[in-house]
Amino acid sequence: MTTQVIVLNGGSSSGKSGIIRCLQAVLPQPWLALGTDTLVDAMPASLQTSEDGIEFSPDGEVIVGPEFRTLEAAWIEGVAAMARAGARVIVDEVFLGGTSSQERWRKALDGLGVLWVGVRCDAAVAAGREIARGDRVVGMAEAQAELVHRGVAYDVEVDTTHAESMECARIIAARVR
Amino acid sequence: MTTQVIVLNGGSSSGKSGIIRCLQAVLPQPWLALGTDTLVDAMPASLQTSEDGIEFSPDGEVIVGPEFRTLEAAWIEGVAAMARAGARVIVDEVFLGGTSSQERWRKALDGLGVLWVGVRCDAAVAAGREIARGDRVVGMAEAQAELVHRGVAYDVEVDTTHAESMECARIIAARVR
Amino acid sequence: MTTQVIVLNGGSSSGKSGIIRCLQAVLPQPWLALGTDTLVDAMPASLQTSEDGIEFSPDGEVIVGPEFRTLEAAWIEGVAAMARAGARVIVDEVFLGGTSSQERWRKALDGLGVLWVGVRCDAAVAAGREIARGDRVVGMAEAQAELVHRGVAYDVEVDTTHAESMECARIIAARVR
Amino acid sequence: MTTQVIVLNGGSSSGKSGIIRCLQAVLPQPWLALGTDTLVDAMPASLQTSEDGIEFSPDGEVIVGPEFRTLEAAWIEGVAAMARAGARVIVDEVFLGGTSSQERWRKALDGLGVLWVGVRCDAAVAAGREIARGDRVVGMAEAQAELVHRGVAYDVEVDTTHAESMECARIIAARVR
Repeated sequence: MTTQVIVLNGGSSSGKSGIIRCLQAVLPQPWLALGTDTLVDAMPASLQTSEDGIEFSPDGEVIVGPEFRTLEAAWIEGVAAMARAGARVIVDEVFLGGTSSQERWRKALDGLGVLWVGVRCDAAVAAGREIARGDRVVGMAEAQAELVHRGVAYDVEVDTTHAESMECARIIAARVR
Repeated sequence: MTTQVIVLNGGSSSGKSGIIRCLQAVLPQPWLALGTDTLVDAMPASLQTSEDGIEFSPDGEVIVGPEFRTLEAAWIEGVAAMARAGARVIVDEVFLGGTSSQERWRKALDGLGVLWVGVRCDAAVAAGREIARGDRVVGMAEAQAELVHRGVAYDVEVDTTHAESMECARIIAARVR
Repeated sequence: MTTQVIVLNGGSSSGKSGIIRCLQAVLPQPWLALGTDTLVDAMPASLQTSEDGIEFSPDGEVIVGPEFRTLEAAWIEGVAAMARAGARVIVDEVFLGGTSSQERWRKALDGLGVLWVGVRCDAAVAAGREIARGDRVVGMAEAQAELVHRGVAYDVEVDTTHAESMECARIIAARVR
Repeated sequence: MTTQVIVLNGGSSSGKSGIIRCLQAVLPQPWLALGTDTLVDAMPASLQTSEDGIEFSPDGEVIVGPEFRTLEAAWIEGVAAMARAGARVIVDEVFLGGTSSQERWRKALDGLGVLWVGVRCDAAVAAGREIARGDRVVGMAEAQAELVHRGVAYDVEVDTTHAESMECARIIAARVR
């Protein structure tokens, strides 16, 4: 079955965005990259830092509220509709809810050719990269490194601890049909 | 009919993004803001500056290629699906094709409650703001100021030449059902 | 006396940055634009949000700590040295301490040709623009609108409440020797 | 002698900025980070892409013009003055001119305690990271990887090909007096 959607799941600062830009460069067809960051940027400022929306606590924990969940559900339907309408889509995700997060996407993407990709990175290395980036709440990388993979099933997994974004992208691209 | 989608159309540097952030602040419900910039950012780097994708010529003209059009068509379907799934959506658009651009959105949004908003700005004023922003190809504001409104029908029009973003947002918000 | 430094002082969201980009565009010679934002970006992340550095309280008040003050003093010396070495410099400042802030700069710039510019904006209008920008702590615009001008002496003042950045830039440029 | 200035020199996408943010986090005292990017951002838009200023050719070559050089000379004087006034400064540099670039800084920093740091990265790896970043002209990483180190003398060298930013920062921090 032709791959219509690539879902990358990994913790903050695990290197997903870099891999996705490399994937867009190496895949012969144009792919749209959409993800949690796109959704958060699209929300009202009030939901970007509130109990109803998304909160980044000082220790790096992320808490998602009911209003966020409602908009996210519609967002997921919309991304699935883009794929059904012919766009190849790479989804950049952080499965804070592990299995249940994957289940939400699985239902929405039903009938589409999906490649599930796990992006792993050693927690301490990701925490160092979070400091090097300088634009993220410190603590998210470590808090999410293991959490987001709990109970999630993948077609292919990459680990950025010792591999470059481009190497990971090539491994993933080799699995795209 | 309840407003489910607000489409703002205006030239570059006409002030759409500022109005949209104010709209998100004054409307009582959470609204997602999505637009041409979101789509361009989601595209592969190669399509962001090429004949197949989108080109910004030195004089500010914008040329959109076939690959861009294909992804855009699927994007529009997806945004419509988000609205059908219950998200309130504000669309930030630049109708380079005038009537035909509006027609593309009208078809996709069929059956939804849509508020069509024209955002005008005197070309010379927009050109000055383009320089003040410092992050846009100079010339786009002037090239698009009139062009994007040709043959387009609106429910409400605002003009940012002498009005603040917040004033414009309140005028638009008063028309949301 | 030839103008070697232009110091613009105004509250957050009063429109200084836009005026400066227009000034750089209309002045016949190249001018460097440096300011509080440049300094804050150069600081360690830990000083960007702490008691020792700079704090943005939820109501928009800005509190500057001792470590920040030490680095700022050296920064001001350095900017003055750039002007003495021949660079034309536009300084983008927020005089939170009013007269005493101006005094710090006046001492450092002693002997140089300085044009002192006040950038005013009605507090309510600036507050609306702060929401339209979407990238600032809400409340700063209103808290600073009057505060930063207390006891400060200017060679020229502009008001962005009803004037475009480019108009303000032309008024200032006419005073540059 | 106490270290007052740390100069990091390396090609585009060699990882200097990440190392510097880690250095700022691990060094016990606050250090200011200033560099070529700060200078370019401070210049008029017209100098950021022109023969008189700085040009990024499509193959990644960077050409620096006479106006740029004049402002840069004053900038270097100013950064040295900041260090003399008591600020600890980390300089993020790209020595396009190799030895002569270092000589310019060496003269300005005369009498100060300087730690010269070379940041190396395998050209092919840097080129991959340039694609992963997505915000740089492709080709600069490869064009600069060797060029910037020609004839330059260092106190310490790090190589980001196989080492994390944080590891490199710790190696450098151990040399700071």
